[in-house]
Amino acid sequence: MCPTDPATRPAGPGGDASGSALFTDLYELTMAQAYAAEGMAGRAAFEVYFRKLPARRNFALAAGLAPVLDFLESVRFTADEREYLRRDGRFSEAFLDRLSAFRFTGDVEAVPEGTVVFAGEPILRVEAPIIEAQLVETFVLNQIHVGTVAASKAARVVLAAAGRRVVDFGARRAHGVEAALIVARAAWLAGADGTSNVLAGLRYGIPTYGTMAHSYIQAHAAETEAFERFAALYPGSTLLVDTYDSLEGVRGVIDLKRRLGDGFRVRAVRLDSGDLAALAHQTRRLLDEAGLTEVGIFASSALDEYAIAELIRREAPIDGFGVGTRLAVAEDAPDLDMAYKLVEYDGRPTYKLSSGKVLYPGRKQVWRRTREGRMAGDVIGRAGEIQPGEPLLRPVMSAGERLPAGRASLAEARETARRSLAALPEALRGLEPAPEPYEVRVSEELRACLAALSRAPISNA
Amino acid sequence: MCPTDPATRPAGPGGDASGSALFTDLYELTMAQAYAAEGMAGRAAFEVYFRKLPARRNFALAAGLAPVLDFLESVRFTADEREYLRRDGRFSEAFLDRLSAFRFTGDVEAVPEGTVVFAGEPILRVEAPIIEAQLVETFVLNQIHVGTVAASKAARVVLAAAGRRVVDFGARRAHGVEAALIVARAAWLAGADGTSNVLAGLRYGIPTYGTMAHSYIQAHAAETEAFERFAALYPGSTLLVDTYDSLEGVRGVIDLKRRLGDGFRVRAVRLDSGDLAALAHQTRRLLDEAGLTEVGIFASSALDEYAIAELIRREAPIDGFGVGTRLAVAEDAPDLDMAYKLVEYDGRPTYKLSSGKVLYPGRKQVWRRTREGRMAGDVIGRAGEIQPGEPLLRPVMSAGERLPAGRASLAEARETARRSLAALPEALRGLEPAPEPYEVRVSEELRACLAALSRAPISNA
Repeated sequence: MCPTDPATRPAGPGGDASGSALFTDLYELTMAQAYAAEGMAGRAAFEVYFRKLPARRNFALAAGLAPVLDFLESVRFTADEREYLRRDGRFSEAFLDRLSAFRFTGDVEAVPEGTVVFAGEPILRVEAPIIEAQLVETFVLNQIHVGTVAASKAARVVLAAAGRRVVDFGARRAHGVEAALIVARAAWLAGADGTSNVLAGLRYGIPTYGTMAHSYIQAHAAETEAFERFAALYPGSTLLVDTYDSLEGVRGVIDLKRRLGDGFRVRAVRLDSGDLAALAHQTRRLLDEAGLTEVGIFASSALDEYAIAELIRREAPIDGFGVGTRLAVAEDAPDLDMAYKLVEYDGRPTYKLSSGKVLYPGRKQVWRRTREGRMAGDVIGRAGEIQPGEPLLRPVMSAGERLPAGRASLAEARETARRSLAALPEALRGLEPAPEPYEVRVSEELRACLAALSRAPISNA
Repeated sequence: MCPTDPATRPAGPGGDASGSALFTDLYELTMAQAYAAEGMAGRAAFEVYFRKLPARRNFALAAGLAPVLDFLESVRFTADEREYLRRDGRFSEAFLDRLSAFRFTGDVEAVPEGTVVFAGEPILRVEAPIIEAQLVETFVLNQIHVGTVAASKAARVVLAAAGRRVVDFGARRAHGVEAALIVARAAWLAGADGTSNVLAGLRYGIPTYGTMAHSYIQAHAAETEAFERFAALYPGSTLLVDTYDSLEGVRGVIDLKRRLGDGFRVRAVRLDSGDLAALAHQTRRLLDEAGLTEVGIFASSALDEYAIAELIRREAPIDGFGVGTRLAVAEDAPDLDMAYKLVEYDGRPTYKLSSGKVLYPGRKQVWRRTREGRMAGDVIGRAGEIQPGEPLLRPVMSAGERLPAGRASLAEARETARRSLAALPEALRGLEPAPEPYEVRVSEELRACLAALSRAPISNA
């Protein structure tokens, strides 16, 4: 294993942080050209937050900051990209010239990756000349969104597993190579033990795990032959027993012990179909009766936090879980209603009142109080306010340059997550909605500011 | 617009087809080393299929073949990647040497992108020396899976819109940059009219669309000022009216017409919150009363096929839909239970009987019968059988080289999808499950083959 700091790696194949400024919604470019034409060069502040938690969730776990900062440091319009825009016909030569010199020169504040966050709380704020802040919207939202979606799901799986091993098996079902890397990274950040994704191992220094596939068993003339060959080559391996019949497979492993004696080094069997709880009990009994008390049971097959909790409720003697598809796509909540909203332009707080989508004006901060080591309520207020508790947003980039807090390693983010999850109030740790949601208050000053602004005749004045 | 053939583009930033062989589950590498150590060099056939349709789906639309073929042509282990594996400690120098020369030299058959497919039907088959076929599993599955998930969702959205314009707005909520590109491509393939994703425009030659964001309105002192400036710069633009109050916004557009007279070139207004059907009716009335009958209505905000169908049922006078999050993550079915299974090794058909996951042995073909231009039943049989109907799987790669059928352009795939969706039986076109699922039969010969094999004492013989 060679841990590498994802925050400082250049984008590679299967790229996470591409640095291509053209990954943007078209309107960002047309608006940017309009700002340029209108001479609007004021500084803008945009904040990222999500509007509400998915139905069955009690919290989210922030992630995705590292690739955002990578992007902001490297974002450029290449000659090919400018040529594409020229042929498009919507853009002037003056604007295209401007794009050739485009750099991100702004400031960023953000909550550290691995921090528990709630609806309405700013996770990240970009402050920059409005053209810059506007052009990076799509990438910033995309990465904070998917990172947070993946880390939030993984945190639930890790909590449900209650100390048993959790390994990300989702590479084949994540939404692309990049998504698989994001999920592996987010799962590790949230406390999983590793991943089957070897590229994620290289990229992020995450421990990699693997067992064997049905195809390996099938390619041999007999299951026992496959077991014997694989075990001989890989002491400490995990043998997949369900290709033809799970308990027959377990008996095949026991038979291998009889034949190999002290040479037997199999560490675990893997169950991958059927009633996993019942099979795990039967498997444990067979193994124990044969004296193989050291051989563990690893389970996979459509697992998620709900399935794991149910297996544990049924006291299934399972030592570790391979969690694939449902983690990889965050199946029960594959998206968050996340936005990147203008809260200040040229020193003036801005807001919006679109039906059901109220936006509080101005630059904000979140303060978190704790009591006896547990989170005890958050306040969202104006950035300059004095409030009790720890402020969550911290400067991570200044004038386009990363600050020390923007260089947190993945190991540090994992530690942040561990501490943040340990501080969750008990009622929020369960899989079902807490009787009372966590208290997140909007400060008096911030409420007053919105009220004052929305009384002012801004719209169609 | 400059259409480029995705099938022949090298992987770029935000990469879709990375060519990195290290994007693989660890067990592919350990199994490959075992095959090498055991001298198992026989040819293997692996087939990709999904086990069942998600609850509310009547069909899937195959996609993802082009990036798979790009990958198979370019897949390599780089020196850095081999060095990472060396440090890992699980792999011998002999095996690492072998990886340095690793190339894909196999054959591939596949259904064309844009073909309607059903549970159990092989979508793609890889035939190659077993080490090669095993090592590419993770990437092949990943790309066919996400492509098919995205195209299947997009096809439903397009069918629901019943001829109205559909634009992919999902870039910010897809699971990464690559996922956003995959979704934009899949949506276009399935019949959408374009995307907001500019990088997808460059990469795939898809038409790009954009309106304006709330931030542009907010950054101006008044909404009317923002409308006037934007409309002056972009004749034919779409103005977003809901920042403060949707109908007030529409009145602002009407006011702009009064002030600009013949200089008024606004093409549409965009509704993005509230009761879209009610607002669309009210907006249409206001615009028509002001003589602005040529100004269209474009809608966005949490749209998907269900919301669009409901808007159409309420006769909302909406001309086009921006479909974001729920398309981008395929919210109601973000995954398919898709597998890559060994069906033949060294000339011997293989199978498996894992509980609930039966696999039919041997290389297969799917034949589709049509009646009066509509699909009238499929048969899955052994590759050599004679069956009525059109065979769906076609050779696309031979000995690692793309065949003409493997060079289908995105425009051709879009045409395949158009024809394939037009041939759907009426009962399968709706959003809810058809009373009777589409008929997919397993041939007598194939059933007999499984029965014969599973009677044979293969397991633990």
